[in-house]
Amino acid sequence: MSENIESESPLKRQLRTIIFGTDTPAGRYFDIALMVCIVLSVALVFLDTVEVFHREYGQIIRVLEWVFTIIFTLEYGLRLYCATHPVLYARSFYGIVDLLSVLPSYLALLIPGANFTLVIRILRLFRIFRVLKLLRYLSEGNVLLRAMMQSSRKVFIFFFSVSLIVMVLSAVMYVVEGPDNGFSSIPKSVYWTIVTITTVGYGDITPKTGLGQAIAAFTMLIGYSIIAIPTGILTAEISQEVGRHRDLRSCNQCHKTGHDLDAMYCSRCGCELDSLDAPVENDA
Amino acid sequence: MSENIESESPLKRQLRTIIFGTDTPAGRYFDIALMVCIVLSVALVFLDTVEVFHREYGQIIRVLEWVFTIIFTLEYGLRLYCATHPVLYARSFYGIVDLLSVLPSYLALLIPGANFTLVIRILRLFRIFRVLKLLRYLSEGNVLLRAMMQSSRKVFIFFFSVSLIVMVLSAVMYVVEGPDNGFSSIPKSVYWTIVTITTVGYGDITPKTGLGQAIAAFTMLIGYSIIAIPTGILTAEISQEVGRHRDLRSCNQCHKTGHDLDAMYCSRCGCELDSLDAPVENDA
Amino acid sequence: MSENIESESPLKRQLRTIIFGTDTPAGRYFDIALMVCIVLSVALVFLDTVEVFHREYGQIIRVLEWVFTIIFTLEYGLRLYCATHPVLYARSFYGIVDLLSVLPSYLALLIPGANFTLVIRILRLFRIFRVLKLLRYLSEGNVLLRAMMQSSRKVFIFFFSVSLIVMVLSAVMYVVEGPDNGFSSIPKSVYWTIVTITTVGYGDITPKTGLGQAIAAFTMLIGYSIIAIPTGILTAEISQEVGRHRDLRSCNQCHKTGHDLDAMYCSRCGCELDSLDAPVENDA
Amino acid sequence: MSENIESESPLKRQLRTIIFGTDTPAGRYFDIALMVCIVLSVALVFLDTVEVFHREYGQIIRVLEWVFTIIFTLEYGLRLYCATHPVLYARSFYGIVDLLSVLPSYLALLIPGANFTLVIRILRLFRIFRVLKLLRYLSEGNVLLRAMMQSSRKVFIFFFSVSLIVMVLSAVMYVVEGPDNGFSSIPKSVYWTIVTITTVGYGDITPKTGLGQAIAAFTMLIGYSIIAIPTGILTAEISQEVGRHRDLRSCNQCHKTGHDLDAMYCSRCGCELDSLDAPVENDA
Repeated sequence: MSENIESESPLKRQLRTIIFGTDTPAGRYFDIALMVCIVLSVALVFLDTVEVFHREYGQIIRVLEWVFTIIFTLEYGLRLYCATHPVLYARSFYGIVDLLSVLPSYLALLIPGANFTLVIRILRLFRIFRVLKLLRYLSEGNVLLRAMMQSSRKVFIFFFSVSLIVMVLSAVMYVVEGPDNGFSSIPKSVYWTIVTITTVGYGDITPKTGLGQAIAAFTMLIGYSIIAIPTGILTAEISQEVGRHRDLRSCNQCHKTGHDLDAMYCSRCGCELDSLDAPVENDA
Repeated sequence: MSENIESESPLKRQLRTIIFGTDTPAGRYFDIALMVCIVLSVALVFLDTVEVFHREYGQIIRVLEWVFTIIFTLEYGLRLYCATHPVLYARSFYGIVDLLSVLPSYLALLIPGANFTLVIRILRLFRIFRVLKLLRYLSEGNVLLRAMMQSSRKVFIFFFSVSLIVMVLSAVMYVVEGPDNGFSSIPKSVYWTIVTITTVGYGDITPKTGLGQAIAAFTMLIGYSIIAIPTGILTAEISQEVGRHRDLRSCNQCHKTGHDLDAMYCSRCGCELDSLDAPVENDA
Repeated sequence: MSENIESESPLKRQLRTIIFGTDTPAGRYFDIALMVCIVLSVALVFLDTVEVFHREYGQIIRVLEWVFTIIFTLEYGLRLYCATHPVLYARSFYGIVDLLSVLPSYLALLIPGANFTLVIRILRLFRIFRVLKLLRYLSEGNVLLRAMMQSSRKVFIFFFSVSLIVMVLSAVMYVVEGPDNGFSSIPKSVYWTIVTITTVGYGDITPKTGLGQAIAAFTMLIGYSIIAIPTGILTAEISQEVGRHRDLRSCNQCHKTGHDLDAMYCSRCGCELDSLDAPVENDA
Repeated sequence: MSENIESESPLKRQLRTIIFGTDTPAGRYFDIALMVCIVLSVALVFLDTVEVFHREYGQIIRVLEWVFTIIFTLEYGLRLYCATHPVLYARSFYGIVDLLSVLPSYLALLIPGANFTLVIRILRLFRIFRVLKLLRYLSEGNVLLRAMMQSSRKVFIFFFSVSLIVMVLSAVMYVVEGPDNGFSSIPKSVYWTIVTITTVGYGDITPKTGLGQAIAAFTMLIGYSIIAIPTGILTAEISQEVGRHRDLRSCNQCHKTGHDLDAMYCSRCGCELDSLDAPVENDA
């Protein structure tokens, strides 16, 4: 869109279409190849932590890890080279994720035992979101995201009230059960309360006294009934979002709205309707 | 419907009505007898794995297993014999399930210790779906299926996002807790994260460090709140499906739509309405 | 309503008003006294199973148990005496529950160690439902019951499909994990699968092999996502029931319907509306 | 509003604006400072129960605890001094909470080992609700609260029915499993049933016999399906509340109602709409 785009080399322009675009077949193949590389490289990181694999195939895994690192380094260099605004790209969310998927391998070379780089290498997975664009799944994700945004205030109030209840119950259980039964401190007691109120129930810490078991039963019933609240909030919002989504499906000929999500033709004039995603992507 | 049906023997035609049909009393009795055989034969497979039963009644169970195998073999032969298109039947979903319910017993005769045939023998249960047709429960199942199909894209996006969160949390927990506390590899850590985020909480692997317990509590709260999302998606879709189902209930006389699901007479002209399942089965 | 009611003694008629009715103050006091007796007698049964209470207060508990038995026997006799149709009462649901709350104590006298009578004695609790009538909570219960009846077919299809999945998964886990890891038989494996798919997760049986843990994780995700289905079904039905309930709130003057559940006056003509429960109880 | 307000000192009036009000910048800073103090003082109580912190920083924690106690005492004194009606304030809900957040520290001075004062000190957290007023989150909380009030009768009926089922199942499990398998009394069996029916599943008490495991599986399936009921009730109510909330958004110019929750301008005449919270806070 700016002037210096006009003067750039055709190679750079073509590379940009392939690497950043998803409309040409070449761009699509590039995205799919990239997604496969990401998934394989993360699978390698996972397998390398398994004792047996590390012993047997440790050498191969390390080589493959370097192959992927070089691929991602090349890709990052190409993106920097052919981006319209390299600095803007490097500072963008995806630019940072792209850099983070390359750096840890070099760091691991310098600091051998640094397994905290593991976690950063796994952040590569977020690059898949970029590839998802070509799958046209985003409009569905938008409905979910908007529903969550709409209900975020109610959910905040909910979690705030729940955390107050959790803290009071934790203090009560610490006093009732005491360190002898595993409730060694209030923070540990908070851990137990969350394990109980979310109905996870590991059983690593359990009440032993009668009173403690009664309070635990009460905590469970609270958890059981308040699980309904976020569900209710979100369901109400998603219902509204789906309804609004449907209203967006208007006929280009007679402008009738409110068609079914899977309708292909206008129910009044019989004209073909736009595909489901179109109206949403236009305003997104 | 094709010409060779006309020339076939009346016995074959009558057998087909009984074996494949559900409209005549004989066809219904055949289906019920078949269902009883399936349930009994699967119950036998289950009981045979219980130590006590195997020791005491092993002989009887083996005999009965052969009786059912012969019954199902005969039934499969009869179906092949009287099907309008034997090859089409043999290749259809139910044709393969019917064959699979017979073969494993013969295989078990040749390879004595092959208890993987167990699982295939249990697939017999899917034959019950065929029998369910006569119970007129399918229209209800259709409402559920359609609701699930409609929401499958949103659910896919949901599970994709959840699996990203699961992998990142697994890597974090592997680094924080380490092999000493049971998180021996990232795949094992993924297992723990799924156990936690789905609120199952076996307790076979639990965090021991303070930081690990804090992250675990955070994981539980995520699981607790995102359980609301698929519920919200599906509820919105089922509500719409039920509404659409109601719209299908139109009066044959005055064509008024939108009657209650349990209404017997048209609320405007008083004519008797079709039964609930009729309009759906017509278009299914 | 029949002729012999006219000729019966006034005492009998008054007793019936007190024992069976809930409209007079005396009838209400009788019901509340009865509810207190039921709750106390069940609390006694519960406390008697606690080691400490049994040792310390066993004698007192046994005496009180007899006091309550005599009270309930007297009450049952009075009900039989003053019922309009004693035989019909004795055969009715509540008649049988009333008898069952008396008999076990006598049986326990004859067969000392029979602690199966415990369970029958606790069935007394169902008598509280009769007392609830006076609390006017039944119309709310009706909304729930009707919603559940409406959705029972969908829920049946759901549970039928789930039980098929459970059985196949159980057989797979039995083959994969085997008796060495606690999956000693398929029925036990079914128990494990239900513990997992309902997200209870005791942890008394857990998968040990890598493949088993992968299948377990898959089972949990199934359980996690299908928990949404019954919720969706029921929510859709309850929404409809609440809506229908609202439609029943019509103004006696101008016949406008659809008033809020907590509205006191007609929104069009300003006349006072009937209380919430009235229209429902009339047609129930 | 009463006459003696006019005659009071300007200092007192200004103090009241700062301490009780949330409209002036000074009042807002006071509230935020107070919230920070509350959170810090509760964090201190929590950390003090951790063995390591108590040993290392016990001295500092005790000093800081006294600093906060003096701050809260001063604040309570100021509130009493500048309240329009000191007696009404002292008797109000927040007045009592304010007093309770000060007293326990003095009590702990007199009775050294009294760790039941812990719980009371944590009740300080409820003072945060007062501060939340300035965050304008209350209208969202009102929607939730009203939805819960509306559905409280249905939820009561639900919990009453569930508790009957729990008691009967507990008695059955006590008889089936008996004290040898951990079901040492019916109250303990009730604890197990609640752990199971809420899908918490600690695993500290688990059925060992085949029949017990079958009943346990049945209990889980009940818990799994009835979890849908409160969700359904609440979702239906929240949907209605959100709808009603939307109806309240009327245009001041043309009086059109039913605008979207995030709409800024009237969809008919284009006038600016009031902010979301305004109409609710007016009638609350």
